[in-house]
Amino acid sequence: MQRPRPQQMQIQNKKQRTTRINIHKEQFKLNMLEIKENGVLIKNQNKINDLKQSYYGKQTQNGLLLNHIEAAYLLEMQKLNLDREKLFETANKQNPGFELKFIVYRDLRERGLFMKQGGQSADLFLYDRGKKPDKHQFKYLVHIYSEKDTIKIKNLHKKTQKAQNIRKTPLIALVDGEGDITYYQTNIYNPKGNAEQIKNTQATGTLLNERTLIWKNGEKLHKKWFYGKQFSGNTYQLSLTETQYLQNKGNLKLKNNHKKIKEKTNNPQRFQQKQKVYTDLRERGLIPKTGFKFGTDFRLYTEYTDPQNLKHAKFLVHTTNPETELQPPELSRTVRLTQNVRKRILLAITNREINYLEIERIKL
Amino acid sequence: MQRPRPQQMQIQNKKQRTTRINIHKEQFKLNMLEIKENGVLIKNQNKINDLKQSYYGKQTQNGLLLNHIEAAYLLEMQKLNLDREKLFETANKQNPGFELKFIVYRDLRERGLFMKQGGQSADLFLYDRGKKPDKHQFKYLVHIYSEKDTIKIKNLHKKTQKAQNIRKTPLIALVDGEGDITYYQTNIYNPKGNAEQIKNTQATGTLLNERTLIWKNGEKLHKKWFYGKQFSGNTYQLSLTETQYLQNKGNLKLKNNHKKIKEKTNNPQRFQQKQKVYTDLRERGLIPKTGFKFGTDFRLYTEYTDPQNLKHAKFLVHTTNPETELQPPELSRTVRLTQNVRKRILLAITNREINYLEIERIKL
Repeated sequence: MQRPRPQQMQIQNKKQRTTRINIHKEQFKLNMLEIKENGVLIKNQNKINDLKQSYYGKQTQNGLLLNHIEAAYLLEMQKLNLDREKLFETANKQNPGFELKFIVYRDLRERGLFMKQGGQSADLFLYDRGKKPDKHQFKYLVHIYSEKDTIKIKNLHKKTQKAQNIRKTPLIALVDGEGDITYYQTNIYNPKGNAEQIKNTQATGTLLNERTLIWKNGEKLHKKWFYGKQFSGNTYQLSLTETQYLQNKGNLKLKNNHKKIKEKTNNPQRFQQKQKVYTDLRERGLIPKTGFKFGTDFRLYTEYTDPQNLKHAKFLVHTTNPETELQPPELSRTVRLTQNVRKRILLAITNREINYLEIERIKL
Repeated sequence: MQRPRPQQMQIQNKKQRTTRINIHKEQFKLNMLEIKENGVLIKNQNKINDLKQSYYGKQTQNGLLLNHIEAAYLLEMQKLNLDREKLFETANKQNPGFELKFIVYRDLRERGLFMKQGGQSADLFLYDRGKKPDKHQFKYLVHIYSEKDTIKIKNLHKKTQKAQNIRKTPLIALVDGEGDITYYQTNIYNPKGNAEQIKNTQATGTLLNERTLIWKNGEKLHKKWFYGKQFSGNTYQLSLTETQYLQNKGNLKLKNNHKKIKEKTNNPQRFQQKQKVYTDLRERGLIPKTGFKFGTDFRLYTEYTDPQNLKHAKFLVHTTNPETELQPPELSRTVRLTQNVRKRILLAITNREINYLEIERIKL
């Protein structure tokens, strides 16, 4: 989340002014609470014991300090009596991330899960189902984004890496304009396949505008290594990506000028990125074919014997680079479509080396 | 298609050189054909009669002139004997759009449909199933795009308008890297709904970062006119779009500074476009709610009585402007997801007025 964290806000506002809120006098005595800039302080010992049992708040010298999120949640649950408008306005003013955090916190508590306030590494630390803060380790590092945020691939990658390094699961909570939340798990994935590398084949063809027609050895290319597709009769076609790859490997000779491949793409930079990913996947023993029908760069076959015995393509691959800004609606659409067609999505991050980031929508 | 049309090519190359191709002598005599820059000329009268019956070619003084596409198709069907490499290379050189047109032409002929070579208004004129060129009018104006082209919304809109003006159906044939084709029908649509306009309601709320919490009259807003959503108890939330709309209508008073709405969006220009579309849809008696889960701006309810009796949202709406460049993979993904969830997609084109373009994937 790009907003300042509450911890930072607290440091910035060292002078802790307290505001007594205008509530019914008797209720005030019962709860003995004050809305402060860093939360709500509870002084009634019975209430404190009750709340601590459910892992709310933090013990201080003056009483139990609930952060604004906990206080707002307890208010919603009618376990505290506070001026709602006042609390939300104060909390929102003190912590611009309050609103989204509250929505996510509430959703997770309602699912019976426990959390700790996050630190530098995440917005929330979340425990697995049935696991409790005093007895167990937390499982998830939760990062909260709004539908209107953009997510830089570089940051997503780093967050995933950091979480995996300390054996935690990174989780994205994406809050839409109506306050509904979608949860995504991310994972650095190392795809591998069993496809053989091409050898002992020399094909010849003619490069048209968007494909190469193979006049010789097309059938072998297609059936043995799953390059190209039948065009008609014994003529086969290769995509531009396949054309360039096989040329580089020395397995394809073009009858016309092969230097034109780049010119035939509308976005040469993106074509070269896709080409790098294609090459990397082929060298990992995988078979990438166009993913156009799913709106991605490639669909990916991990197991291969021949075109007749083709297994379902398990993955879709989308080429990005570290600076790519992921738009949440785009993410939502891509992951939803991927799971609708029972596949998994990999973001290929092209840098000096290529990393693969899997994004999966999960139900908590 | 941005490539020069064959007609234009023909005008440019007035000197019609003919090239005799190196085929088996006997076969040549049988067919009596020549590959020319504008097609293949057939001189054998039996062959001519045969081909004309199936609506191939154009009668000239010297014989029947097949265009390169027809010739290539007849070659594939083994109804002509020509040097395949030579034909494809000549055709590709003379007409850079040849490859895609051929792929689409072949696909449509294989589906049993007839076509005429297109003119200024389209790449192909296509007849409906069972309809024949000498007896009927054609139905579709076919526009061919490749997966790597971008499609400017303005052009798509114009093409759709022109086709509808002459009572034809505009059709997009989108050819992917493997030569598979997806067909889309476009339609200028005029959405209308039965939702009442808001009246006699004054709500108050506090604008947080991405939503407004309504302290008073939230329930009425929600239940009667389907604004916002329950936040908790009797507190309701509005999205930024709903907030701005109700403010403009004079039905909402914010307790904090309302001028901040624009600042709270990451992309103010896009927010204002969405806002225009939202307003237009509301005024048409429709109810737009966030379409985030489908990766679009809005989902759209056309019929409304109350939240308990909510009908399925029939449409998804995506905001664009005339200069927006549609990426074919994005189009493919969006339409596929839309139809997976049994909805229809409208592109809202925001200009001086707002036009709605429906895109639907069809099977021919």
